[in-house]
Amino acid sequence: MDVTTIVSKGLAALSYFVESKNEAIVIDPRRDAQIYEEMALERNVDIKYVLESHRNEDLIIGSLELQNLVPSLEIIHSKHGAPFKYGEHNVGDGEKFEVGDLEVECIYTPGHTNDSVCYAVTDTSTGDDPVAVFTGDTLFVNDVGRTDLVDIKKHEEQSRKLYHSLHDKVLELPDSTIVYPAHGAGSVCGADMAARPVTTIGYERMNNPWLNKDEEEFVEGRLNSNLMIPDYFTRCEVYNLEGPPLLSEVQRPRLLGMRKFAELMHQDDHVVLDTRTPSSFVSKHIPDSIFMGLQMMGIFLGWVADYEDNYLVVVEDSSQLETAWNYMVRLGYDGFVGALSGGLMGWEHSGRPVASVSSPTSSKLKQWIDANGLQIIDVREEHEVHGNLIPGSRLTPLTEIRDHIGDLDPNKKTISVCPSGFRSTIGASILKREGFEDVAVPLGGTHAWENHGYELA
Amino acid sequence: MDVTTIVSKGLAALSYFVESKNEAIVIDPRRDAQIYEEMALERNVDIKYVLESHRNEDLIIGSLELQNLVPSLEIIHSKHGAPFKYGEHNVGDGEKFEVGDLEVECIYTPGHTNDSVCYAVTDTSTGDDPVAVFTGDTLFVNDVGRTDLVDIKKHEEQSRKLYHSLHDKVLELPDSTIVYPAHGAGSVCGADMAARPVTTIGYERMNNPWLNKDEEEFVEGRLNSNLMIPDYFTRCEVYNLEGPPLLSEVQRPRLLGMRKFAELMHQDDHVVLDTRTPSSFVSKHIPDSIFMGLQMMGIFLGWVADYEDNYLVVVEDSSQLETAWNYMVRLGYDGFVGALSGGLMGWEHSGRPVASVSSPTSSKLKQWIDANGLQIIDVREEHEVHGNLIPGSRLTPLTEIRDHIGDLDPNKKTISVCPSGFRSTIGASILKREGFEDVAVPLGGTHAWENHGYELA
Repeated sequence: MDVTTIVSKGLAALSYFVESKNEAIVIDPRRDAQIYEEMALERNVDIKYVLESHRNEDLIIGSLELQNLVPSLEIIHSKHGAPFKYGEHNVGDGEKFEVGDLEVECIYTPGHTNDSVCYAVTDTSTGDDPVAVFTGDTLFVNDVGRTDLVDIKKHEEQSRKLYHSLHDKVLELPDSTIVYPAHGAGSVCGADMAARPVTTIGYERMNNPWLNKDEEEFVEGRLNSNLMIPDYFTRCEVYNLEGPPLLSEVQRPRLLGMRKFAELMHQDDHVVLDTRTPSSFVSKHIPDSIFMGLQMMGIFLGWVADYEDNYLVVVEDSSQLETAWNYMVRLGYDGFVGALSGGLMGWEHSGRPVASVSSPTSSKLKQWIDANGLQIIDVREEHEVHGNLIPGSRLTPLTEIRDHIGDLDPNKKTISVCPSGFRSTIGASILKREGFEDVAVPLGGTHAWENHGYELA
Repeated sequence: MDVTTIVSKGLAALSYFVESKNEAIVIDPRRDAQIYEEMALERNVDIKYVLESHRNEDLIIGSLELQNLVPSLEIIHSKHGAPFKYGEHNVGDGEKFEVGDLEVECIYTPGHTNDSVCYAVTDTSTGDDPVAVFTGDTLFVNDVGRTDLVDIKKHEEQSRKLYHSLHDKVLELPDSTIVYPAHGAGSVCGADMAARPVTTIGYERMNNPWLNKDEEEFVEGRLNSNLMIPDYFTRCEVYNLEGPPLLSEVQRPRLLGMRKFAELMHQDDHVVLDTRTPSSFVSKHIPDSIFMGLQMMGIFLGWVADYEDNYLVVVEDSSQLETAWNYMVRLGYDGFVGALSGGLMGWEHSGRPVASVSSPTSSKLKQWIDANGLQIIDVREEHEVHGNLIPGSRLTPLTEIRDHIGDLDPNKKTISVCPSGFRSTIGASILKREGFEDVAVPLGGTHAWENHGYELA
């Protein structure tokens, strides 16, 4: 038995390729699924099954995509809680199947969703005890799955279900069982995940704060956990129930000449998405483009981008074209029209219009603040803020920025702030697109402000 | 805490890069150690310590090499059992040190060697229990360390030490502790290792056959375990005690022109090593060259190659030059003079002499056997053979072939056999170099023989 973890960067989503004796299973494959086919060919194994831990809400599942590449494989998911419109096996608690020397047992664990399944794996070549369990979004390292997503009105009910799934089923496994969850730190699927990719049942039993609460404490804790629900979750849920379109039916990543790009960007429902770095964006960008740096796209795209729009993409260089496309289709943003050939430099050289955002140093910002006449928005989420705002800032979470734009004066100099300069650049690009004339981003963020010795409030 | 496993292919040796909060440790680094420096730079972490699990006998340790690249790091190994001539810290049982959020505790576990140390790691950011233990050659997945290498006369004494180190110390860790051993399946360091890269204390406690014996059964089992001791182990032990030469002082991999190659190969102490595939070798090779296909070099080179010789290497193509060099220096074979520019095809095109080995199909071999007049040697080890020999074969383990050459008739047609055609090609190349005129290798091995329906004896 050999377990390989495939990380979907940006999303902090973990999928697994598990092989034994020339057969393999893939757990929660990502949508750009060639990687699993390549692994199977390289290792000379047959992918026998795809296992879905649940109907994912934060990414588009790659099961059908992989089945399109490897037609002989069969897809397994729950028979409870989600009326899947694809897949060969709908399994219930205790059902077993074999892969090489492995025996895989399905453990029905409702809570995060009503179709959540954990898969416990016994390697019969070395013993009769389960060696590993793939816990999906039920149990993470130092955290547990969200219970607010099924229906916020059923938050308590789902929390109780999760409590019982964890205590009556998952924790019944031996302490020695290795736990492979579906997400690592940085995911939108949990607040407290540790930056460690793997754990064990016993370690979590002893150390996971959520497993050391009684039922009422657990439910109360869940009800008080304050995570955001991006709009794109709904799209993912629909796709993952019905089966998303195959990527062969979706527009492939391609470069667009400048003339074509310029023509399309003025059409309805076409948006320019700039995937470069914050410093590249503030320096020069195409007017009205939305900033969405590649490395954070998995987390923030779903908050600010509309599913129905068509996207014209600016990349730092054309080698990132495929990556940008992969990141977008993983979230179900299939309207990737193409990327700008020649990049922003070529665009500017051709004499086409560019815009910029000023980026004051901390001391310049301090002067501006002292001189008055600014509005400062801090785009962090509420739970991140505790006495660490630049004085005079108004909290305007990026996830709600469009709802609060009416509260701001578009004619006033506006400063968009966050700790690192990343989210604040996204915020600035949205404000500019909404007609704010004078927008600035201190790229050093609150970190540089503090390190310069200026006070936070 | 994040653990990355770095596999030294061929050797089945596992080293680990463990990071926490911008600091890292490396456990048992390989000699071509740039990879750890590159990981540290890419992840923006400082390597604080190198931990050695013991004075390795089957590979050259890369601690000094890595310290040469990262001078600020400190080397940690045991204060008992081995008078190391390098390193900053000689540690004893219970000593602790910190790396990022991690607390690392040294557990002195003599048995495999008298300087063996396991390192238990607690991630203080998630709990007070050890989350992982790096067990070196003390505990493997489904196996335990060899106890015959310190001194075969002390085999029983070392076995008892190992038993107590395992039961009184390692198994005192929680069942939930993840176990990261220094070797995986295919290593010369154990016979029964499972093809799984990771396990837990609890899983091994329940399933590892060696941990389910009482002391007398354990010792008896160890004394009956029949593993070979290659000569090169001695060289590794000396190097790993004194510190091996830095690779900057060793000849770098380079290509040699044909004229130079031809000139050197006739000098004393120069040997041509052919690292291509078995089928390439039997088809055409440089006369008197020794076959040592790249993929198995880590296992077999030490059995057949002399440390004092200088090696002229034939590679399939020049992209494998660096790999061949890496594999050789990992074992301490520093006499890599260079690889043949233009490869074997260029050599043959130039009109220089080539030789070949005939490779009969199973049915052709059957005809030869029926016609008599052959000698057949099977080059497997004794413990691999149980009624699966081609009738008429004489067992002549590759590891002892030079000792048994006098028993064979160099003027008789000689067939070298193994299951896969790999070791048998090594054997054939040795026989030819020793003057056997007519040597053949059935590349399908005993596998093809059996699949053709011919009997095994």
